[in-house]
Amino acid sequence: MCQLLGMNCNTPTDIVFSFEGFRRRGGLTDHHADGFGIGFFEGRGLRLFHDDKPSANSPVADLIKHYQIKSENVIAHIRKATQGRTSLVNTHPFVRELWGEYWLFAHNGHLGDFQPPPGQYYTPVGNTDSERAFCFLLESLRQRYPAKPPRHELFAAMAELTAHIRSHGLFNFMLSNGEWLLAHASTLLYYIVRQAPFGEAHLLDQDVAVDFNAVTTPNDRVAVIATLPLTRNETWQQLAVDELVLFHEGQIIHRHCPQPPCYLSAEEGLAIARAAGVAEY
Amino acid sequence: MCQLLGMNCNTPTDIVFSFEGFRRRGGLTDHHADGFGIGFFEGRGLRLFHDDKPSANSPVADLIKHYQIKSENVIAHIRKATQGRTSLVNTHPFVRELWGEYWLFAHNGHLGDFQPPPGQYYTPVGNTDSERAFCFLLESLRQRYPAKPPRHELFAAMAELTAHIRSHGLFNFMLSNGEWLLAHASTLLYYIVRQAPFGEAHLLDQDVAVDFNAVTTPNDRVAVIATLPLTRNETWQQLAVDELVLFHEGQIIHRHCPQPPCYLSAEEGLAIARAAGVAEY
Repeated sequence: MCQLLGMNCNTPTDIVFSFEGFRRRGGLTDHHADGFGIGFFEGRGLRLFHDDKPSANSPVADLIKHYQIKSENVIAHIRKATQGRTSLVNTHPFVRELWGEYWLFAHNGHLGDFQPPPGQYYTPVGNTDSERAFCFLLESLRQRYPAKPPRHELFAAMAELTAHIRSHGLFNFMLSNGEWLLAHASTLLYYIVRQAPFGEAHLLDQDVAVDFNAVTTPNDRVAVIATLPLTRNETWQQLAVDELVLFHEGQIIHRHCPQPPCYLSAEEGLAIARAAGVAEY
Repeated sequence: MCQLLGMNCNTPTDIVFSFEGFRRRGGLTDHHADGFGIGFFEGRGLRLFHDDKPSANSPVADLIKHYQIKSENVIAHIRKATQGRTSLVNTHPFVRELWGEYWLFAHNGHLGDFQPPPGQYYTPVGNTDSERAFCFLLESLRQRYPAKPPRHELFAAMAELTAHIRSHGLFNFMLSNGEWLLAHASTLLYYIVRQAPFGEAHLLDQDVAVDFNAVTTPNDRVAVIATLPLTRNETWQQLAVDELVLFHEGQIIHRHCPQPPCYLSAEEGLAIARAAGVAEY
């Protein structure tokens, strides 16, 4: 199974600390070693890095560490190829333009039998189930809304489309237009909202700590979302199975959750992925 | 005026030598200091780097130097902002999907009064004349051809569309879909095709030389295209004013040239750009 990392903030923030732990899962502490990608929104603009080298020893990942790009919305993905040839064209996150905005998408799961009809507006370039799902989402939104609808209406439409797609398999994803970040869990997705009073956090994958108090202002609010928690001394919240949430300025402002919510343990989540043929390990 | 650099080859080739001279024009040997961008095709996939720092001292440009990415089609752009705010969203090259391929576009010129009507398929995200022209090109092709036409038919359509757009100003551009690279000159654009027997080349902007004989095989063929020649001991060919050419596997296979062809000196080209309000210098 691939791993996802996202960040949504109320002020441009660098993701270096979280990314350092995350990238080690690409080849060092875990087996997601088929390349990685990360996209940073800066206003309406997007800075995108893809690499087919494992993130743990990628020069592109080194650049990200040293450059400390500040962004309000970030989505990163470490890939373990299960659908599609391992190549740059199949490396997440994927980008398309919708309603005059760039939309950025990364997926972790398996939608093997999801073969939507060719779209009028969006066509996959690679051959992954993930890019097919992304194009289907955008196509459906654009067919329904020639112009951008209000956010609550968009969220309701996304909840409906997400339910349709996940009926074909496992559909953990993150999606951002630079303004908000949507996250959906079929199995495993955790988040944490960091805000004042800030404390110290210790990475799980590396002996590294950061004192957020020293690098933030009292008004900062940062949500970090990941397949599995990245730190060992903080309490991460879990998304329920089939839960969809929309983060804006570092907090959840819309959520759509089945009743009663069901939560998987990490072991159960990984076992389900394995049983669905998602991963070889 | 901004500067353009392109490469089209019959075998994946690194662009480090040409890029090293070119990047020094972003802040060191010239005044194109409002950021830069470069896109490398790898098969159908695209590796894209944008930076709002001047290319001469950008960490992203340093990465490109050290990573030595090999590609068959590359387009790079150093920006001097004349249209649109200097920001990441306005940084070339721009990318969109057409007929299941990524298309990569960079422009150098001025199309101030070019305001095509909103497209059905393509909408600019930033506010440059360049992205408007790119979206208009793709929109027109897609409206005319629901599926990808044969290459000679596509070239004829591009010649017609290019003539329409350049009637609004200066339109030096490069465009690639990963298979071929189109180049069009309103004023200045030069190219060189390097093939066996390979020799040594010396950069104009830096005291650096490379012996291509040592880094190529006898079958390699590499076309490099740039606003102004990059080396001082090779003979660069100039595109005529309003000439459109299509490179494939390192050679020109289609060209559309007005009769009789007219060539501008570098001084004339820069003076025309200045008179059109393209650049402050």
